[in-house]
Amino acid sequence: MQTTETTHFRRLKPVPHTSVAFTDGFWAERTRINRETTIPTQFQRLEEEGFIEVLDVDQPPKPLVRPINEYGLSMQMFFDSDFGKWIEAASYSLATHPDPEIEAKIDFLVDKLDHAQLADGYLNTWFIRRDPEKRWTNLRDWHEMYSMGHLLEGAVAYYQATGKRRFLDVMIRCVDHIATVFGREPGKRRGYDAHEEIELALVKLFRATGESRFLDLARYFIDERGAQNPHYFDEEAKEFPGGKPFNFGTYEYSQSHKPVREQDEVVGHAVRAMYLYSAMADLAAEDDDASLKAALDKLWRHLTSRQLYVTGGMGPAVENEGFTRSFDLPNETAYAETCAAVSLVFWGHRMAGIDLDARFADHMELVLHNGALSGVSLAGDAYFYENPLESHGQHRRWRWHYCPCCPTNLARLVASLGGYVASHDDENVAIHLYAASTIDLEVAGRALRLTQQTAYPWDGDIRITVEADAPVPATLWLRIPGWCRDATASVNGAPVDVAALTRKGYLGIRRDWAADDEIRLHLAMPVEALHAHPDVGMDADRVALKRGPVLYCVEEADNAAPPQHMRLAAGEAKAAFDAGKLGGVVTLAVPATIDRTADWQDTLYRPRPAETVAGTITAIPYFAWANREPGAMLVWLRDGR
Amino acid sequence: MQTTETTHFRRLKPVPHTSVAFTDGFWAERTRINRETTIPTQFQRLEEEGFIEVLDVDQPPKPLVRPINEYGLSMQMFFDSDFGKWIEAASYSLATHPDPEIEAKIDFLVDKLDHAQLADGYLNTWFIRRDPEKRWTNLRDWHEMYSMGHLLEGAVAYYQATGKRRFLDVMIRCVDHIATVFGREPGKRRGYDAHEEIELALVKLFRATGESRFLDLARYFIDERGAQNPHYFDEEAKEFPGGKPFNFGTYEYSQSHKPVREQDEVVGHAVRAMYLYSAMADLAAEDDDASLKAALDKLWRHLTSRQLYVTGGMGPAVENEGFTRSFDLPNETAYAETCAAVSLVFWGHRMAGIDLDARFADHMELVLHNGALSGVSLAGDAYFYENPLESHGQHRRWRWHYCPCCPTNLARLVASLGGYVASHDDENVAIHLYAASTIDLEVAGRALRLTQQTAYPWDGDIRITVEADAPVPATLWLRIPGWCRDATASVNGAPVDVAALTRKGYLGIRRDWAADDEIRLHLAMPVEALHAHPDVGMDADRVALKRGPVLYCVEEADNAAPPQHMRLAAGEAKAAFDAGKLGGVVTLAVPATIDRTADWQDTLYRPRPAETVAGTITAIPYFAWANREPGAMLVWLRDGR
Repeated sequence: MQTTETTHFRRLKPVPHTSVAFTDGFWAERTRINRETTIPTQFQRLEEEGFIEVLDVDQPPKPLVRPINEYGLSMQMFFDSDFGKWIEAASYSLATHPDPEIEAKIDFLVDKLDHAQLADGYLNTWFIRRDPEKRWTNLRDWHEMYSMGHLLEGAVAYYQATGKRRFLDVMIRCVDHIATVFGREPGKRRGYDAHEEIELALVKLFRATGESRFLDLARYFIDERGAQNPHYFDEEAKEFPGGKPFNFGTYEYSQSHKPVREQDEVVGHAVRAMYLYSAMADLAAEDDDASLKAALDKLWRHLTSRQLYVTGGMGPAVENEGFTRSFDLPNETAYAETCAAVSLVFWGHRMAGIDLDARFADHMELVLHNGALSGVSLAGDAYFYENPLESHGQHRRWRWHYCPCCPTNLARLVASLGGYVASHDDENVAIHLYAASTIDLEVAGRALRLTQQTAYPWDGDIRITVEADAPVPATLWLRIPGWCRDATASVNGAPVDVAALTRKGYLGIRRDWAADDEIRLHLAMPVEALHAHPDVGMDADRVALKRGPVLYCVEEADNAAPPQHMRLAAGEAKAAFDAGKLGGVVTLAVPATIDRTADWQDTLYRPRPAETVAGTITAIPYFAWANREPGAMLVWLRDGR
Repeated sequence: MQTTETTHFRRLKPVPHTSVAFTDGFWAERTRINRETTIPTQFQRLEEEGFIEVLDVDQPPKPLVRPINEYGLSMQMFFDSDFGKWIEAASYSLATHPDPEIEAKIDFLVDKLDHAQLADGYLNTWFIRRDPEKRWTNLRDWHEMYSMGHLLEGAVAYYQATGKRRFLDVMIRCVDHIATVFGREPGKRRGYDAHEEIELALVKLFRATGESRFLDLARYFIDERGAQNPHYFDEEAKEFPGGKPFNFGTYEYSQSHKPVREQDEVVGHAVRAMYLYSAMADLAAEDDDASLKAALDKLWRHLTSRQLYVTGGMGPAVENEGFTRSFDLPNETAYAETCAAVSLVFWGHRMAGIDLDARFADHMELVLHNGALSGVSLAGDAYFYENPLESHGQHRRWRWHYCPCCPTNLARLVASLGGYVASHDDENVAIHLYAASTIDLEVAGRALRLTQQTAYPWDGDIRITVEADAPVPATLWLRIPGWCRDATASVNGAPVDVAALTRKGYLGIRRDWAADDEIRLHLAMPVEALHAHPDVGMDADRVALKRGPVLYCVEEADNAAPPQHMRLAAGEAKAAFDAGKLGGVVTLAVPATIDRTADWQDTLYRPRPAETVAGTITAIPYFAWANREPGAMLVWLRDGR
């Protein structure tokens, strides 16, 4: 359905999340739980687990190293980032649902941070309290700018939600301090943080304030990365008192192995990579930088064709929390960190903003409904750091973690999800995500409201109605998902030639949009059995069931045998909405054969295959797994059809 | 073929390795390489890698912590054990092939060890040189008796090979020192080493000297293990200066979670487990202890029915170098330490000595020809610590390792392999392993020589001829391997009723054996495709090819595509000896289909399976893998037959 024609839409501007309201159904429910349960309980966890008290930089540093949780491990030196992400999430929520209690909690944290900030603008509570003399001596390992970047994102979000400048000003002072320390000018260090984050935060600050020095600093960090010989991290290590071991051993770990424009394969720590590419996409948009865009296209291609789980998760290895060789996608041991999935949404969203190609929003959709959403329980208060594709019941959600980066990352994404639904400029409106919702926007100064009525993702029928005081001339671009092999559409009852009008995966309908116009879009959603590339050896002769954007798995809780004993048999898979299951999901019933184990007794290997009995597999959406009693789970099912 | 009749042969005595000569073929070649290359080059490595110099306890301890190898890691505190195992291997070799140069090297090491020993008998060069005041303060983590046990095994072997008592006396002084520190008597500590080894070494010392105090000490350690409340390791930790973290977190790690007679599942660190069970079998034999034998039967059953790779390797996890949940047998990440496989041979051999049941020698044979032998290169000078069942070329043999436990462990096994071939008492002779060899033994005072002529393991025809000055009345027990489904035999041309005469997997032929008697045994060895128990999810719909005792794998080096792309197709597997390949091995040619990848391009997942072309797979013996250029390898082949 895609054409080879290149249609770039530079800087299609996202419709802000405050202009999108999820009215009912899937995302209305998920965002409600995020607002009512996830965000408040995360603050409770921060309190209970001793995070809040460590902000008191006037106190002696002892509490910093006490074991704080079931892991018996100390808090991390980058815990400021957790406050930053929580404030960001809470601010997005405040912006649409005012809540004095939440606002007071943010103000309380801002008080602490403001008090902690040093006179020169430096702000990192761990170093201020514990090792002030060591600040800026180890960019390779100590995450100072990573922490500052998350605080900065929080400050921008809080400012935009409330208009209060105090936290923003604190962080501007911090950023201005950073700019006195790092840069190409004489007397400054040509450093950059090994954990990317400050770069994209600086672009947000630039966009919020319009002050170009923040964009300049972001550009400096991006351009400098991996471009130095000798390497900054080596030079820095030479000056470090007593030397320091190279914990992770490679520059690839921090994507600093070569200049960013020469990078063509995703490597290293997955979250770092996603944050870097997000910042590169921001800069490509601001600078109209074709060389950055070209690198990003190669990196996107490498990720999506070689390194991505079928869930949208990525980064199989615990060792580097990131990428390994191409096609290395083990299932039970998949790391597939929630944060990495979340940040692929960030990157994909930015890519869709500079290139209206459905492959970007397709992956946003994939990750959102599967490998990211799996990171939080249905009740909204228990989490996964790792998102494996197979389990024998050993994977259980936790209430908190010694490295609680994922819960707040997911919370800020869900709280701002409206901002991912659509984007526009003066002539175009693009809809990236389908969900029952209203979208309010201005196109060339004229107000336009689009209302989506749909049971998506459970159903592929979408009705979009228009409200406008006066006709709005624009092309409405509707994403035709890559998974959809049969899409039909009509405008006010008149069929639209989807194939002819689709460019790079978006169906473009040009029209003077007027009140009561109605678009109907039908995206056929049969159950599909996906095969993996032959180089993904672990998935050979197996299939993953998918229906529309929703990937399925099989849990022992719904079946008479563990899914590892089951093998798909010939016959039709039946999909049905089950309101009583897992908060209401479409489940699949699939014919299968089931291995018998009784006759094996003490035999571990034998020349004769297992005997089988016929049966039916019940599959549930992957995102909803591990919400019941512990048991086996499997995404890639044995294929005997 | 097995009967339910219980025939115990307590204390069938192994024919010593000095009475068995491999005459030609498979094991003659492997033992020659072990003697001519492996043992001498291991001493070279110990010299080159700085191990020898650290024996100089009069020198300051600095060299102990310098990085010594490619891993950049320091030497381990238990490196005495490497000398012990090397001396043991070299002594076994000396006993059959005198070599003044090797003997001089052993004497050189014995000089150092004798010099290092403290006046009270304590001998551990790491603690003597570095931390003498800390000795005996941390049995849980510091392996002192483990190291002493290996030195003791070396001392016994050297004494038996040469008659020289000096090293034996050094180690007896050390053992007598141990007995003054540990025991139930007042003033002694009720401790035992978390890494078992001293127990089986003490039994060897008892058998070499006849002095019962050594057996008593072994019995004390075995009986005390896991039997205390509070746990010795906890009590010890309370007294440790400054406290100490519990690195491995569980008592199971050291099999000290409950009294040994109550243990019924193999747990924890695999080598520790095998050493403990070996010592328990020794003690069961010496004490005629049915409670120990009953526990060992349960442990054996659990291991072989739930925890054993098809290679005979075990212990899938790097984290604890050991066991995880039942049926958790991942292939590419298999730890399956060479030492663990080697020590399963030790345990199996001891079990066969107290219970002539072929399941023990079957597993000895399995491990020897596959998961243990894979630990050394064909040339005999490069090693694997881990023995995975799948690779993408990332696994390469190394010349040395910061923890070089495996090379010397394998060397001592191969150097003494003759001792595993047969055992006997005054009325019975049992042959456990088939290999071209001569076996000299005395049965009730009468000399008997058995000569095996065979191309085993490549061929299942075995001709055994008898030499005896006078007829020897005895039952000759010939193992009918569990893998064999069609065995025939004859004595002097007269057929024997194999089924009727076989007890617990051994064909028993009672006769007055006389010169020129000839037994012919035919063990049919078709290629078999083994399936794994349905709970081994990673091997579902896959098969492992095996022919006789030899397990096969597929290496990219012999094939036009990586084995992960191949799927067995209907048709006959053809076996043929290829003298030019890998030192001469039987290879298999198996019909297959091969996935095409060209049309996938950038697609990672799609609803349509891969296209295939017909082809033939060449499989090689697993033990011979990774001896050529790097490339993919696979044991469990996709089954499309």
